[in-house]
Amino acid sequence: MTSAATALRSRVQVWVEEIQDELIAALEQLDGKASFERDRWERPGGGGGVTAVLSDGGLFEQAGVNRSAVWGEFSDAALARLGGDEREFYATGISLVLHPRSPMVPTIHANFRYFERGADAWFGGGSDLTPYYPYEEDARHFHLTWKRTCDAHDPSYYPRFKKWCDEYFYLPHRGEMRGIGGIFFDDLRGDLEATFAFVRDSGAAFIPSYEPIVHRRREERFGERERSFQLYRRGRYVEFNLLYDRGTSFGLATNGRTESILLSLPPLARWQYGWTEEPGSREEEALRFLKPRDWAT
Amino acid sequence: MTSAATALRSRVQVWVEEIQDELIAALEQLDGKASFERDRWERPGGGGGVTAVLSDGGLFEQAGVNRSAVWGEFSDAALARLGGDEREFYATGISLVLHPRSPMVPTIHANFRYFERGADAWFGGGSDLTPYYPYEEDARHFHLTWKRTCDAHDPSYYPRFKKWCDEYFYLPHRGEMRGIGGIFFDDLRGDLEATFAFVRDSGAAFIPSYEPIVHRRREERFGERERSFQLYRRGRYVEFNLLYDRGTSFGLATNGRTESILLSLPPLARWQYGWTEEPGSREEEALRFLKPRDWAT
Repeated sequence: MTSAATALRSRVQVWVEEIQDELIAALEQLDGKASFERDRWERPGGGGGVTAVLSDGGLFEQAGVNRSAVWGEFSDAALARLGGDEREFYATGISLVLHPRSPMVPTIHANFRYFERGADAWFGGGSDLTPYYPYEEDARHFHLTWKRTCDAHDPSYYPRFKKWCDEYFYLPHRGEMRGIGGIFFDDLRGDLEATFAFVRDSGAAFIPSYEPIVHRRREERFGERERSFQLYRRGRYVEFNLLYDRGTSFGLATNGRTESILLSLPPLARWQYGWTEEPGSREEEALRFLKPRDWAT
Repeated sequence: MTSAATALRSRVQVWVEEIQDELIAALEQLDGKASFERDRWERPGGGGGVTAVLSDGGLFEQAGVNRSAVWGEFSDAALARLGGDEREFYATGISLVLHPRSPMVPTIHANFRYFERGADAWFGGGSDLTPYYPYEEDARHFHLTWKRTCDAHDPSYYPRFKKWCDEYFYLPHRGEMRGIGGIFFDDLRGDLEATFAFVRDSGAAFIPSYEPIVHRRREERFGERERSFQLYRRGRYVEFNLLYDRGTSFGLATNGRTESILLSLPPLARWQYGWTEEPGSREEEALRFLKPRDWAT
């Protein structure tokens, strides 16, 4: 461990703490009704975190903002999944999933993290949007925000990370995307200072990427039909997270904190055998909407 | 393929069709209100099945009884999961999951299947019960039915299959059992005629294992609190099936019929961060109830 790396580690850890507080404050304001409860936890092998949850709010049915900084030696189970011989690791990051009550407001997820393994260090992260009903201007706003954030650092980022996101949030057993994507990146090494600056800007872009969509959609009317479709589509969120999400399966397989990991799951979800959208309905339109597309135009 | 094996394959396939019809008839009678809809499907690589679903019934919120008989050559994906070189396979079986509306009536699952791979052939199956509220007499009745069914064939079966079931239906990330177990068996070879007789008797034992429990519990009163606990515990059913169930992950990874495979998921489920049972409550008692125990006494 060089002292430069040690210094970066500490600075990232401080940023993670700050961004959690900033996001919590902004999301409480956006919600307008409920507050987050903070739950501080320790990891027996080293480190810990703060899981913050808002439930039954004015906007959010459930919102979770989780941060952690953990370190130690990989278990055999972790090593088997990750490969390699190096056991010493450090990881810090923030992860959030917001499940609004209204089916007109999209579910959103973001995650920013920093890893060290032995002498190696890298960043990962991203943010993706899962609308229930299709609004082109929302999808465009979301992608344009991320494109601008990426372009300010490296013009190759947005095209690469947008494609990566489309490929990652895919349910092969359904032949469906989880949502309309966003950006996803991992193993970002190189100039770690420059990468950290990009990650900080990404954290700062989260609220601007989402807030205008919330303001446009939170007063839209909906009824039982739209709520039912939302709960059905939330089933896909559950399927993705439990079947394919790498963070989830790695966390659960390596004795991570289950309640914090599974805070990504929606508060309520439903399944219905053989459901098909009515031809010409908004639900049919919604499913056609969830295809990889060039949104940043 | 010997002609004896070919003859067994056909006889099992006929039995699977018959037991599906028998179970559907018995479950409709038990439900008292709704009927199953049968959905016949074909598998592009060979074979097909009938998925039968009852929804919004008098007893069942959702009941699925699925049969299939499929054959062909394992894909590379299937081979990678199963190991070995032999690609030629044949599989037939029946699988059912019943989700009652009342939290006082347990969810139940059963599965009986016959496999051939090249010259090798074996049976697998079992049945397990997932109560929401704890009733000792129900758990005893369920296990005693399976013990008697097993003992009539081989006194070693019940102890082995009961233990196997306890080990299989376990959620390591929760440190919890899915329910109170039952029996689980796989790779039953040896005298295939004798094993088939055991499997037939198991199919016949399914309704008797469950019906008295239904009659005792279907009129029990419950309110929002019990319904809420049921939906919360159903989240564990989802977690088990998507994270650990071998049939589910094998089926989805090998292009099985998604809607039939995921018919095991409950029609509605919820998650709640950091939920804990109230000391002294029936919910606390329920969680203590879900521990491996010698029920067949």
